[in-house]
This record gives sequence, structure tokens and C-alpha cells, in this order.
Amino acid sequence: MAVKPTKSWKDELHEIIYEADTPAGKLFDVVLLIAILASIVLVMLESVKSIDAKYHNFLNISEWIITILFSIEYILRIISVRRPIKYITSFYGVIDLLSTIPKYLSLIFAGTHALVALRALRLLRIFRILKLARYLGASNQLASAIKASRAKISVFLFAVMIAAVIFGTIMYLVEGEESGFTNIPKSVYWCIVTLTTVGFGDIAPVTPLGQFIATIIMILGYGIIAVPTGIVSAEYTKKANDNDKSKQGVIPPHPNEVQLNSQCCANCLNEKHVDGAEYCFKCGCKLHHD
Amino acid sequence: MAVKPTKSWKDELHEIIYEADTPAGKLFDVVLLIAILASIVLVMLESVKSIDAKYHNFLNISEWIITILFSIEYILRIISVRRPIKYITSFYGVIDLLSTIPKYLSLIFAGTHALVALRALRLLRIFRILKLARYLGASNQLASAIKASRAKISVFLFAVMIAAVIFGTIMYLVEGEESGFTNIPKSVYWCIVTLTTVGFGDIAPVTPLGQFIATIIMILGYGIIAVPTGIVSAEYTKKANDNDKSKQGVIPPHPNEVQLNSQCCANCLNEKHVDGAEYCFKCGCKLHHD
Amino acid sequence: MAVKPTKSWKDELHEIIYEADTPAGKLFDVVLLIAILASIVLVMLESVKSIDAKYHNFLNISEWIITILFSIEYILRIISVRRPIKYITSFYGVIDLLSTIPKYLSLIFAGTHALVALRALRLLRIFRILKLARYLGASNQLASAIKASRAKISVFLFAVMIAAVIFGTIMYLVEGEESGFTNIPKSVYWCIVTLTTVGFGDIAPVTPLGQFIATIIMILGYGIIAVPTGIVSAEYTKKANDNDKSKQGVIPPHPNEVQLNSQCCANCLNEKHVDGAEYCFKCGCKLHHD
Amino acid sequence: MAVKPTKSWKDELHEIIYEADTPAGKLFDVVLLIAILASIVLVMLESVKSIDAKYHNFLNISEWIITILFSIEYILRIISVRRPIKYITSFYGVIDLLSTIPKYLSLIFAGTHALVALRALRLLRIFRILKLARYLGASNQLASAIKASRAKISVFLFAVMIAAVIFGTIMYLVEGEESGFTNIPKSVYWCIVTLTTVGFGDIAPVTPLGQFIATIIMILGYGIIAVPTGIVSAEYTKKANDNDKSKQGVIPPHPNEVQLNSQCCANCLNEKHVDGAEYCFKCGCKLHHD
Repeated sequence: MAVKPTKSWKDELHEIIYEADTPAGKLFDVVLLIAILASIVLVMLESVKSIDAKYHNFLNISEWIITILFSIEYILRIISVRRPIKYITSFYGVIDLLSTIPKYLSLIFAGTHALVALRALRLLRIFRILKLARYLGASNQLASAIKASRAKISVFLFAVMIAAVIFGTIMYLVEGEESGFTNIPKSVYWCIVTLTTVGFGDIAPVTPLGQFIATIIMILGYGIIAVPTGIVSAEYTKKANDNDKSKQGVIPPHPNEVQLNSQCCANCLNEKHVDGAEYCFKCGCKLHHD
Repeated sequence: MAVKPTKSWKDELHEIIYEADTPAGKLFDVVLLIAILASIVLVMLESVKSIDAKYHNFLNISEWIITILFSIEYILRIISVRRPIKYITSFYGVIDLLSTIPKYLSLIFAGTHALVALRALRLLRIFRILKLARYLGASNQLASAIKASRAKISVFLFAVMIAAVIFGTIMYLVEGEESGFTNIPKSVYWCIVTLTTVGFGDIAPVTPLGQFIATIIMILGYGIIAVPTGIVSAEYTKKANDNDKSKQGVIPPHPNEVQLNSQCCANCLNEKHVDGAEYCFKCGCKLHHD
Repeated sequence: MAVKPTKSWKDELHEIIYEADTPAGKLFDVVLLIAILASIVLVMLESVKSIDAKYHNFLNISEWIITILFSIEYILRIISVRRPIKYITSFYGVIDLLSTIPKYLSLIFAGTHALVALRALRLLRIFRILKLARYLGASNQLASAIKASRAKISVFLFAVMIAAVIFGTIMYLVEGEESGFTNIPKSVYWCIVTLTTVGFGDIAPVTPLGQFIATIIMILGYGIIAVPTGIVSAEYTKKANDNDKSKQGVIPPHPNEVQLNSQCCANCLNEKHVDGAEYCFKCGCKLHHD
Repeated sequence: MAVKPTKSWKDELHEIIYEADTPAGKLFDVVLLIAILASIVLVMLESVKSIDAKYHNFLNISEWIITILFSIEYILRIISVRRPIKYITSFYGVIDLLSTIPKYLSLIFAGTHALVALRALRLLRIFRILKLARYLGASNQLASAIKASRAKISVFLFAVMIAAVIFGTIMYLVEGEESGFTNIPKSVYWCIVTLTTVGFGDIAPVTPLGQFIATIIMILGYGIIAVPTGIVSAEYTKKANDNDKSKQGVIPPHPNEVQLNSQCCANCLNEKHVDGAEYCFKCGCKLHHD
């Protein structure tokens, strides 16, 4: 380490907090994961009236501890990155702030305490922490299969929406107010409940004509569930075939499939650097290695 | 433009309204899309009692503006096409008329105003407007996968219907009137609700035998959902494979896959003309280019 | 026709009733199809109290006409076949009898009239009539895909059943009688309602532990729906691939795929004879041609 | 048999109870299967109040007979295996004990009788008994397809869980207590009910904003059902392709696919021995043959 005297404590901190290649970085991620899960459980327990009545003090103190830990983490993240504004305005930066601020606000304004529940959004960070897990490959495959069929899925969702609006309007005209179809937005809501085969039953058609149209909607919904499934299946099958052929040498391996590591640029927070990369491919800033 | 003096203002209008190759044509489509969406939102808001009570005048005036705009569009469409009867009696022609007429009727007959909601059907025109979007390919693939498996899907739907009628009749005999299975059509409706796994719960079997038969229906429904999914999946996988092989030169590309444009014959409203086509392949009428 | 003097009127009748190669045979099938659909509609309308009250006489007379027509058809079927016992004891023979007898019984015993609804089972004959339709290929493919994955589907259904019994028993122990889980069979019924994602909501867990277990059941059900779908998809994809390769000459066409016709042996009612077959491949009895 | 004098009565017993290659072993498995099914039916019938009131004595005596039979089986299993502790602490050993003990306990403690229902867990043994059935291949394929996609399914389940927690928390904040979203765990439960398209309807959003978010959840749930289906489909298709290629000689058969038999090591209870194996591949103990 002595030969690399340029590595400041900020860089060290950055490596621990943002990356997962060093033991300290991995440990940080695991501790963070546990803290996030604990904070979620706390918020859940607090929302249950009977438990909150019994253990109010314990829950309150634990929550303050978690809030302060999260605040320290937030400050460290700002300090260790070279362009703090970029982090603060990023998606995860906003969530990190939202998960601490309601608790402080509850000291000033009554009633804002419920917003602590927004902390649940921090669960999304788990996807980022996952990068150290062996599930990276699987989640990448999932993501790329969904990405590849994005246009098809958009058209599909679009068609579902149009069907819901049209059938919802028709059901509103047919059923009328007595059956619970009190206005078109509610009727469209019911239509999506039915098309997706969820079927709560809080609203249900009562006239024979309404039930007949409902039948058409249900069979339509039952049929169109085949479409996204077919899309994703085909995408997966194709990918599996390609992998297969690559292994047999029929087609060359996809050039994109190189080894990525968990390096994260200290300047622009860019990720997905190739193993052995020396500079960030986005901002040209030097990456640090051990 | 001076070298093509034969191009009348009607042809110009036709190109703007029916096609999407010129900037004016694209602009028209975008404006129309916004107007349709706005009209749907208006109809929805008006159906909500509390909103209508507050903003009745604003909603009413906005609706008149939309109605008059749609009427003008309808008249322009009739003028600019060479065979107006063909447009008026076409699917979209009828919908365009239905989306303006209820508002005028509401001046004469009270109560016809609710039919304004039929305007939701104009949403279908979005599929036509979509032709300018990059989603054309995806929606074409969707459509062709569904088309290719049409016969299989018919047999499947047919089997579902027969199962619904037979099981519906049996449930009517088994459950009787107390459980809500008051007549066979209602019982068949319940059966489709169950087969499609929607399950509203407005009607549910109460006798042990009825619940046992319901179990069979549910497992059947759970199983047969695999059929349309399997059909569409296989169709997609096949298509993906074919595309793959075309790219590798194993099989020649499908001869149908040529570039289509958004040209629309001014005489017979026929679409899907090949790039560079001079005459409509259906009526032989000359197409116009810039 | 004069050169084939051996063809008796019984054979002619058999050809009309059981086969679909001659115009008369096709006409008979179409008329029968319409009569079956009409009889179903009649039974449905009669079960609706308000309609029955208004048009009782019309419905009753129509039903007698249909019943007598079906009786005549039943007798003709017995006469025209060489081994009547075989037809009478066959699946379709029993259904044909069941669809006429309740009406006659209703003259003697009151209350047996509701059994007329059993006539809905005649809808199954549509699958037999379908043999003349162009959907034969599609339904054969469906049937063979399901047949090929029979063993897998059995294992799957078996696993679903075991899961339902085990989770049903656990829910009975956890939830107790207050929540509607009054006994184990009912609890197992609820479990299947949940596993298949139907979810009526007539019974729903209320204790936190019960809701937690319900969560597991639901996610399990959501996951295992992938299994039959995957099975059928793979089966279809394989079939599509095989067809593809046959066409390209990579693998020879399946030797079973010869042209079948609608011939039906007058002696043993066996079907699926190869085009040009002279004798029934099951009983050796001569088939008749024109 | 005289030439193999080393085979003790314990070995004979072990072969009958644990294996299925001999007629006696097969008979034992079939009898055990019937006994398990009978015991399940007994427990079910007993839980139905009206049946228990009528046939209490018959049910009680039958249950004692089953319990004693199961106890004998349990003891024989302990005796015939060389390392009884291994069996007793194994998964099936614990279930076998749990299925007999509640009945004995009910003599001492009142109220423990309901735990007899735990016997339903013995149904799991059917999977073990299945090894003699021709469904072994199908269930192996099912298991291996699920195993191969384990990582992907984990990521998927993980994503579903996170979505449920986040949306559940949001719905709790939006809907509040009046609509039944009384605390976050309940709200998360509702969210899973909706995501999996079960939709009981015991809790349903009533505010417009809540219904709008519910719409997003439902469409999300409808879409993500495509993911596990796609995964399993692709896995199956791949397997089917591989089998196909093996048969055509394009790729060699998978080296793992050798004939397994139902031999079960008397020392360590290890299974899945290759046909012709002389020694257990796990503990080196000699296997016995006839």
C-alpha cells in the first residue's frame, strides 16, 4: 500500500462504501443490508397498533438509532464522492435522504411520522448490493430478457390500457350506478381488476348484459396473459440457444460478455467497469485498484 | 412543387389527414392523438359526480370544443377522400361519427348525453396513428403471432366455452338457488369467472359437492391457461429462430418482409403500400408522392 | 350407384348419420349442431324464472319438439349401426339417451324436469362433428401436445393435490373455525382456490400467522403455474421445430401423418380410417364408399 | 438364496421397507400408500362436525388401528436400518414420528388431538414411494428444470417480495385504516394477494389514488407472471432440444443419464444408486442384491 501514496482517505472510504471488491467493502454492504432489513421490520412492527402500544419506547429508540446510522452513512457518501451534487440528485441519493428526514421532521411537525414508512424504498438498494452476490448473472439475464422485449411489452401494455378504457366505458353505460360502477374511472379500475384475472369482487356486474360483457373481458384477459409470457419465453429460449451454440463453437460468444467488476467511479458514480479498466469509460477519471 | 401542377388541394389534404410521411401529416396525427386523449379524460372527469358538480361549465364548454373539432375533422375526411361512402361505412368512419353525434343529440333529447362515452372507441384509432411510431414492428410481430395461431386459439376458446356450459349446468343442478346459482346463464357466467381464475366471489358454492366440482373446474382452468401460452410461446420462438437463421444466411429472408410506408390510397383507403409503389395494388388508382 | 347393389338403406343411413364425406352427411351434421345449440339455449332460457313465467308454453312445446327429434335420431342411430349394443353402451350413446329421457320422465315423476339440463353434455358431440371442420388439424395438435406431456402433467397435478392437502390441514389448525375454516375438506378447498389464484374471498384468513401461510401458498401457486405452461410450451416448440425440419428435409416427415377421413365403421363404430382404406382396421368389416 | 447365507433378517426387512425392487418391497410400498391415504381421509372426515357426531366410535377405532400400524412401521424402520439415529433425525423420520405421537398424547393431554392432522405431512412420502412408478422420469425432469432455474427464480421471488413491501407500505400510507389497510404487514399481505392475481377481496382499496396504485400493482403482477413461466419454458425447450440432438447423434447423451434403481443403503439411507453398483457411493457400505 505504501507504493500508492496518492490514495487518500476519501478514496479509501469511497472504495468501502461504493464498491464490493475489498473485504471492508463487502462487510459494509452486508451491514447495510442488515440495517435496511431491520429498519423495515421496525416500521412494520410500529404500524401494528397492539405491538406499538406495548413496546413503544423500544421501537422509538431503535428507530432513532437506525435513523442516526443512516444519516451518518448519507453524510459519508456525500463526503467520499468527488461530485456530491451528482449523488444527492441521483435516484438512490433522493431515497437515502427520504429515509432519514421524516424522523427529524416528526420532532417539529406532528403527523409526519407515518412518512418514516418511505424507508421501505431503501429496499431497492438491495439490487445494488446484490452486485456482490452470485445472483448477478441471473438478474442480468432477467433484465436483458425484459429489455430485449421492451417494445413488444409496451405495445402489449398499451393494448391492455385501451381495452380497459373502452370496456370500462361500456360497462359504465351498461351497468349504471347501482352495481358500483359509479363513474368511468372506477369502471376502468374494475376492468383492469378483471382483465388481469385478479377479481377482487368489491364491484361485480349484476345485469345479464353486464355479466355477458364481463365474460368477454375475462376470456380476453385470460388469452392476453399468453402474450407477455410468450414474449419472455421466446427471448429466454433464444438466449439459451445462443449460449448453447457459443459453447459448441457454432456462433462466436457475444462480444459484450466480458467480466465486469463492482468498481464504481468516484467522480461520476458510473458502474459496470470491465475487469482491468484503468479509467472510467464515461468521465475519463482514474479508477483506483489495490 | 411547381412541376406537379396536377396535385389538387384535396390531394394535399388527403396526404395530411390520412398519411404520415410529410411533416404536416405527422403533426396532424400528433394533434389528433392529443385531442382524442383529452376527450377521453373529459368524459371520465364528467362521469365523476363530485368533479362534474364543481366544474360543470368548464367541462361542458371543453366538450363542445372537442366535439366541433372532431366534426370538422370528420367533414374534412369526407371531402378529401375520393369515395366518401367507403370512408363513412368503414369501421373507423362509423366510430368517428359516433364520437360526435351524441353531443348534438343531447340538445334535442335529454339523457342521450351519456352516450358521449362512446368516444372512448376513438382510442382504437391510436393503433392507426401508431403506424408512424417505431412500435410498428413490435405490433406487427404481435399481430402475426396471434394470426398464425388463430385456428388453435379458436379450438381452445371453443373448448373453454363448452366446458363452461357443461360445468355451469352441473353446478346449477348441484348448488340450487340458495347459493346464488339462480339460473343456468348465471351459473355459466360463474363458471367462466372461475375457469379464467378471476374469481370475483359474488357467487360461490356452499355445498360440499358443489365445492368439490368447483375444485375440478379451478384445476382445469389453471391447467388450460397453459394452452394459449404454449401456443403463443412456440409461435414466437419459431419466429425468433427464423429471424436468426435469416441473419446467418441459413434460410432466405421472408419475401414479404419489404419496407412498407404510411401511404394511403385516396380512392379506396387501402394501406400497406410498398416503398416506391406508384399505383394502389387494390384499385389501380395513382398514389401521390412529393 | 347401380353397380353397387349391395348398399342397403341401412348403410346409406349409417353414412349420413355417422360420416361426413357426402353432402347428405355434412347437412345432417350441421342440422344436428344447430339442434343441439337450440336445445341448450332452450334449457338456459327455461332456467331463468322471469323468462319461463312469460313464455312457458312456447318453451315447453319447443322442448318437446327437440326431445322428439333427438329421440328419432337416437332410434335411427341404433337401427343403422350393425352392433346396436356397442353404440348404446358407448360414451356418446349414454349421453344421447340422457338428453331425451328426463323430458319423458317429467310426465310421470314431478321434479325430474331439471335433469333436462343434462342435455348440455350433448355439446361434447360437437368435438365429433368438428371432424368435418378445417380445425381438425389444430385440435389434433392440441390433443397430441397434451398427450405427450401427460405424465408430466400427472406428476404436477399430484404435487398440487398434496400441497393442497398439507397446507389445507395446516390452515385448519392455524385459523380455526371462526374464520370459515370449519373443517379440513373446506380448508383444502380454500387452499386450491388460492393455489390456482382464483381467490373467491368467501373464506379468507384473518390471523396474522394464517395470512403469512396464505402468502406462501399464493407465491407457490403463482410459481407452479409456470410448470404446466412450460411443459406445453416446450412440447409445442418441439413440434414446430420438427415440422420445420421436415419441410427443409432435415428429418423425414412423421410416418403417422397420412390423410385421415371421416369414415366410421358401421359394425364397431371405429373411426380415423386412412384415406383409401377398404376394411376397418379394428374389426375387419368392409367400409363403404361411393 | 442358500448361496447367500450372509443376508440376515434385518437385511431382508431393510430391502422390503426401504427398497422397491423385490415383489415384497413393492407390495409394502403399495400397502403403505393405501394406509397413508386412508389415514388422511380419516382425519378429514373427523374434522367435519356432522360426520364426527354420527360415526365417532368408528372413526376413533380406525384411527387407533392406523396409529398402531404406523407405530409398528416406525419401529421396524428403526430396527432394520444400521444407523437408526440417522433415520430418526432425517426429514422423513421426524414426519413419521409426528404422525403417530399426537394420538398417544391425546390420552394424556386433552386438546392435543387436533395435531393428528399433522399426519397429512406423510403424504410427502408418496414422492419417495413414487420411485417405483413410471412417473419417475417425468418428476426427475420437473425437478431438474426447477433446479436449473433456481438462481433466476430466487432473484424473481426476491423482486416480488421487495415490490410487495414497497407497494404495501405505500398503500398503507395512501389508504389508511378505514379501508382495511390497518397496518403495514396486512398491507403487504394484500399486496401479495394482488400481485399474484389471487384477489380475495377481503381488503380492497376505496380511495381513487389507492385504486390507481392498485391498478399499477395488478398490471405489474400480470406482467411478472411471465417471468417464471418464461424461465421454465426455456429450460424445458432446451432439455427437449438436447434430448433430440442426442437421439440424432449431434451431441453425445448426457453422461449422468444412466439407469438408477431403487436400492437404498442400509447404513446411511443414501439413494440413487447406479444399476449394478456393489457398494454405496457415499459410505462405502456393501449394498445387497438377490
